[in-house]
Amino acid sequence: MAGRGGDGGGQPPQEGAAPAAAGKRERIAIRRIDNLAARQVTFSKRRRGLFKKAEELSILCDADVGLVVFSATGKLFNFANTRYTTTTCYS
Amino acid sequence: MAGRGGDGGGQPPQEGAAPAAAGKRERIAIRRIDNLAARQVTFSKRRRGLFKKAEELSILCDADVGLVVFSATGKLFNFANTRYTTTTCYS
Repeated sequence: MAGRGGDGGGQPPQEGAAPAAAGKRERIAIRRIDNLAARQVTFSKRRRGLFKKAEELSILCDADVGLVVFSATGKLFNFANTRYTTTTCYS
Repeated sequence: MAGRGGDGGGQPPQEGAAPAAAGKRERIAIRRIDNLAARQVTFSKRRRGLFKKAEELSILCDADVGLVVFSATGKLFNFANTRYTTTTCYS
C-alpha cells in the first residue's frame, strides 16, 4: 500500500502526537503506531467506529455483515447482523 | 436501536434525497433505504469506506481483522489481514 494518493510528500505525524494547532486534526500515516498507549486508544476509538459503520451498512443497505476483530492482546470483538451468528471461533 | 441519541426530534430525510442546499450533507436516519438505486449507491460507497477502515485498523493497531459482507443480491465481499484467510464460506 505504499504511495497512497494524496499524501503530499512529507511524513505525516504518528497518531497520538501533539496536534500542531488547537482543534485541528492532522492526517496520520497508515503504519503501525509505535506508542503503546496511543495505539490502544486508537484501537478502541477506531474499533467502535468500525463496528458502528458495519451495523449501519447492514441496516441501510439490507446487507449481511460479519466482522471479527482480535486486538493485539488477543481479545475478541465481533459483530454479525441477525441472519448468521458466530458459533465457533478460531481455536 | 430505536431512540439513538442526537436525533433532534424530526425525521431526517432518506439518503438519496435531494440535498437542501448545495454542498451540504444531511444526517440520514439509520433505516433501510427504500429507493433501490440509492441503496445500491450507498452500499457501494459505504462498503468501500468500511473495508478501508478495517484495513487501517489492522495496520495502525496491529489487530487481526476479518470482514465479510454479502450484498442484498448475495454478492460476497471479504477482507482479512494476512494471518488468517477465508477458506470456506457459507454454503
